[in-house]
Amino acid sequence: MTSTPTPVSLRQKPGPNRLAVTGIGNAMLDIITQDHDEVYRSLGLTKAAMHLIEEHQLDTFYAAMGPTLEMSGGSVANSIAGVAALGGTCGYIGKVAADDFGERFRHDLASLGVELDLAVATDGEGATGRCHVFISPDAQRTMATYLGASNRLTAADIRADLIARSEITYVEGYLFDLPPAMESVRKVVSIAHEHDSMVALSLSDMFCVERHQRDFLDLVTSDVDVLLANEHEVRALFGLGDLDHVFEALDELGVLGVVTRGPQGADVATLSGVVHVPAHDVAHVVDQNGAGDMFASGFLYGLALGADPVEAAGLGSLCAGEVITHLGARPETDLELLGIEAGLL
Amino acid sequence: MTSTPTPVSLRQKPGPNRLAVTGIGNAMLDIITQDHDEVYRSLGLTKAAMHLIEEHQLDTFYAAMGPTLEMSGGSVANSIAGVAALGGTCGYIGKVAADDFGERFRHDLASLGVELDLAVATDGEGATGRCHVFISPDAQRTMATYLGASNRLTAADIRADLIARSEITYVEGYLFDLPPAMESVRKVVSIAHEHDSMVALSLSDMFCVERHQRDFLDLVTSDVDVLLANEHEVRALFGLGDLDHVFEALDELGVLGVVTRGPQGADVATLSGVVHVPAHDVAHVVDQNGAGDMFASGFLYGLALGADPVEAAGLGSLCAGEVITHLGARPETDLELLGIEAGLL
Repeated sequence: MTSTPTPVSLRQKPGPNRLAVTGIGNAMLDIITQDHDEVYRSLGLTKAAMHLIEEHQLDTFYAAMGPTLEMSGGSVANSIAGVAALGGTCGYIGKVAADDFGERFRHDLASLGVELDLAVATDGEGATGRCHVFISPDAQRTMATYLGASNRLTAADIRADLIARSEITYVEGYLFDLPPAMESVRKVVSIAHEHDSMVALSLSDMFCVERHQRDFLDLVTSDVDVLLANEHEVRALFGLGDLDHVFEALDELGVLGVVTRGPQGADVATLSGVVHVPAHDVAHVVDQNGAGDMFASGFLYGLALGADPVEAAGLGSLCAGEVITHLGARPETDLELLGIEAGLL
Repeated sequence: MTSTPTPVSLRQKPGPNRLAVTGIGNAMLDIITQDHDEVYRSLGLTKAAMHLIEEHQLDTFYAAMGPTLEMSGGSVANSIAGVAALGGTCGYIGKVAADDFGERFRHDLASLGVELDLAVATDGEGATGRCHVFISPDAQRTMATYLGASNRLTAADIRADLIARSEITYVEGYLFDLPPAMESVRKVVSIAHEHDSMVALSLSDMFCVERHQRDFLDLVTSDVDVLLANEHEVRALFGLGDLDHVFEALDELGVLGVVTRGPQGADVATLSGVVHVPAHDVAHVVDQNGAGDMFASGFLYGLALGADPVEAAGLGSLCAGEVITHLGARPETDLELLGIEAGLL
């Protein structure tokens, strides 16, 4: 019997002790249910949006949900899990509480080999963050997020080590919802610049961009190398309705931009203009949750390996295509094997 | 715009205050990971088998697992969740601890409309049961179960109400692992007989059958109306290698038997001999966990609605075919709609 040789990537990985990507974001557990639209509507939620809720609302929200499954989440943490599933070395910085959910979050990233720098909240700073995710029959997700301990990440919690060793430092837009937000983000950016780590920013959520448009714009103008966003978020950022104008603005700022457009794929800025990358073909979409996060995994890991933006976006599409075929925002498949088989790794 | 009418089942459901099926089993949370075979092997587990572990082993097992997702489980509890997803009224009897996992278990069945009679363990009786499930790349599942509080279900915890109102009372074979097992099972059976509820038994696991063969055989001989098992379990029960001989034995005992055979489908005893029912066609099997449990959902609910055994097994195959396309042992789809569309409900 001859055994099939395991395919091997030909790309050059980062050197010893180096990391492809380190992410900084809100550490969260996802509590996921599939339900008809009446359920989240009865809780006052708007379809397909992310809402912030308080600790005293947790019981009401959980009680209203159908059967749930729980797994680690957090937008940038999902992307980092995706980079690990692609075979990349990576790091994650965030804040949890000393509770079961915090332990779950740590376990799930650590078991993928992700290097962690997790600050632990003190008593009275709330429980580990959690996101109630309602999946509609049409695969859209509506979210109610309790930030909890993740919300207490401060500049003092940001240490240099992981960022200093990373090709790319990936910042979650949701961080702008933290009270001393700009201080923490500025510290991340300054460490990254000092160590020649590219700064990538996810705009996270249209409403989050609207809440902090000025701060986002300041950061993008002065400190961001790579911007990841969907079309709604990027329009909200620039106050421009036309995507062509958005790309012109990014070009003037010298920012590499990629705009995801759901089933329409993604648009990527290149030296010779904007290139459209189609979405990966999927027979049946179960849950769109994580599509943007996994696109970021492929795109950023591709860039870290030296791929050009269009190749990197192709890897992003492949990863996004995997995560929408099942419940949950983290991959269920060996993405590295998938990438190698597709000739993208 | 004309809207598509929602398909409606033409079958007669049980009358007011009646239940199609009540299940009695081990109340469990599943902690599920996908990993290469080395992981569970390093813990001394045999592929595709269920192992019992002790409370002091929990940390070691969890630490060895890759990223996990958690959801309610328990073999018969899964089947009851499936009956609820088919649109059936149903009940569940089991035992949990007063902890987060116990609350999760209760929430997930209650939110499906299942009527619950959950005993709560007292201090010192252990935590809520949990099952560590290792999914191999070939979709097989290897299990390490901590019975915990579920193991403390006694005859005193079994009350008549739900069983008395049920067309079918479904007993989990794993109950034979509980210390005063036969006493609890006898009480269940005696209530069921008194109220004309059919007694269905799941053999649960080959090794469980080997541990308690005599007790299983006594029960099947004297008290069981419907027996659900896979080929390994039913061979272990009768000590017979040939399935034809197994069906002859069941026929002599007057037991309606259905033997599931994975991708080969199921064999069902009928008045005119054994009929083979093919497995439902599935493009890509992700996780075989729950296939037997969901087959039982469709089969038992079909019988409760008055379908003949072959039709009921067809509904079982349809349900099993859904659950193996994703991680986890509970359905992610509206099974009632699926059953109606297939002309089986």
